[in-house]
Amino acid sequence: MAIGRVAIVGLGLIGSSVARAVKARLPGVAVAGYDASDAVRVEARALGFCDAVADGAAAAVADADLVVLAVPVGRMADAAAAIAPGLKADAIISDVGSSKAGVAAALAKALPDHAVIPAHPVAGTENSGPAAGFATLFDGRWCIVTPPAGAPQDAVTAVTSFWQALGARVETMDAAHHDMVLAVTSHLPHLIAYTIVGTASELEEVTESEVIKYSAGGFRDFTRIAASDPVMWRDVFLANKDAVLATLQRFNEDLTVLQQAIRRGDGARLEEWFTRTRAIRRSIIEQGQDDAAPDFGRKH
Amino acid sequence: MAIGRVAIVGLGLIGSSVARAVKARLPGVAVAGYDASDAVRVEARALGFCDAVADGAAAAVADADLVVLAVPVGRMADAAAAIAPGLKADAIISDVGSSKAGVAAALAKALPDHAVIPAHPVAGTENSGPAAGFATLFDGRWCIVTPPAGAPQDAVTAVTSFWQALGARVETMDAAHHDMVLAVTSHLPHLIAYTIVGTASELEEVTESEVIKYSAGGFRDFTRIAASDPVMWRDVFLANKDAVLATLQRFNEDLTVLQQAIRRGDGARLEEWFTRTRAIRRSIIEQGQDDAAPDFGRKH
Repeated sequence: MAIGRVAIVGLGLIGSSVARAVKARLPGVAVAGYDASDAVRVEARALGFCDAVADGAAAAVADADLVVLAVPVGRMADAAAAIAPGLKADAIISDVGSSKAGVAAALAKALPDHAVIPAHPVAGTENSGPAAGFATLFDGRWCIVTPPAGAPQDAVTAVTSFWQALGARVETMDAAHHDMVLAVTSHLPHLIAYTIVGTASELEEVTESEVIKYSAGGFRDFTRIAASDPVMWRDVFLANKDAVLATLQRFNEDLTVLQQAIRRGDGARLEEWFTRTRAIRRSIIEQGQDDAAPDFGRKH
Repeated sequence: MAIGRVAIVGLGLIGSSVARAVKARLPGVAVAGYDASDAVRVEARALGFCDAVADGAAAAVADADLVVLAVPVGRMADAAAAIAPGLKADAIISDVGSSKAGVAAALAKALPDHAVIPAHPVAGTENSGPAAGFATLFDGRWCIVTPPAGAPQDAVTAVTSFWQALGARVETMDAAHHDMVLAVTSHLPHLIAYTIVGTASELEEVTESEVIKYSAGGFRDFTRIAASDPVMWRDVFLANKDAVLATLQRFNEDLTVLQQAIRRGDGARLEEWFTRTRAIRRSIIEQGQDDAAPDFGRKH
């Protein structure tokens, strides 16, 4: 199944990066774009990463072989309804949402007559908007494809090949497992980072200016992901509620154990725990998902 | 008070960086080193960042105008006792410990006849040992000096000037306030990072290999500081127990609020919180304690 025309709905960090990557890696493929925000459409036209930016969702997807929905997960159902009138009969629908079971259900309901193959490129930065995207965002990163039961194999293959062409490595799993994996590798870390940055900024004993001044001691590592897009993350937590709450419960148990060890002065337990976590970091660097520099894989 | 000879006890990441910075920035100053580990002394001699590495703590500090103790905070009292027999009468004693009230008391008790001016350079990496140090580690970073009541002003000035010469910006505050500031900017972030990395590695539903593979989603940001030296951090939590537990209680309250917002589907509360934390990140970048790259201030 050859893809000659891609439509991207939602032109923020991820959508605009997909557009740029298609233009860089798949030169024969046409890219149409749309965003619900007037200002984003104007900015996207000025940046020129799409061949055309349409003024309506249905117009953007006309003649598209593949439609990629790159809107916050809470808006996927509306976006699917908006594109429905413009879709070709054999168009494949995919998305880039960070939670999958809920999105898959919403898309299947809104587009019952189309091949819907949800996907999640595990890549991003803390920046938002069409100017923040770049063509190499997916290079060497994983993209998880979650085909629903009974999905047509040629459509799965097309989505897989598309992401591979954009530089990603593709893994396939079911949506429920995806949501648990991402709850622990992405959603819980974001929740914790958001929490601690908020906590630090509201202590009476320590001023916000002191927190900022001495952030090199460790705090600044958390602030990067706590600067991520608020609406996108609001929707992720609401959409993946069960898995997030389940992993959060485990985290709370572990934190209570370490809290007790500190209160009791149990140095042996602390040292054992801290030694174990070191090994995880080494594995991440060895597997190329970070480097020791550390610039999180993004070179200057 | 001119410093012609510095002794550094403890030649890990921080101690070896101090030695390298002295050689790079203060060419007329002699550097003697000592480490309780035979292997570290051998490695330090091979690396050559000290003018001489002694085989005993008392021998290392002979004739030193300034002694910098760069051992885990749980070992400060023993290190102070070990150097006592070798100290000049007018030698100034300082340290680099990450908690200050307990260290100040231990050093004052062990060395009642000397000027003890504790200090804490807020700088580091997740790497450990003499090979991990580098001369520019303190460039543009803050060093907090916590002079005890009644400390001789010329000794405070000497320690301040020393750190400024090594590239640091110096701030002075009392030890108790330091410990609260660092609990929130450094100790709590490390505790949380250690916790979540441990939690992620022990979930039954998600394999450790999946956690590593998809860590680019946010998890890897935590692993950097969770790879920090286990013994150093064990001692920090034991030494700064009260301030760490106090800030942890605030964190737990805030996390419970966000947990409840997720459970109730309260998107407005989540979005408001996430929008607020973004501003903190911007301030950190504006004040030069991180950059947007983000490589945490360490260029390739």
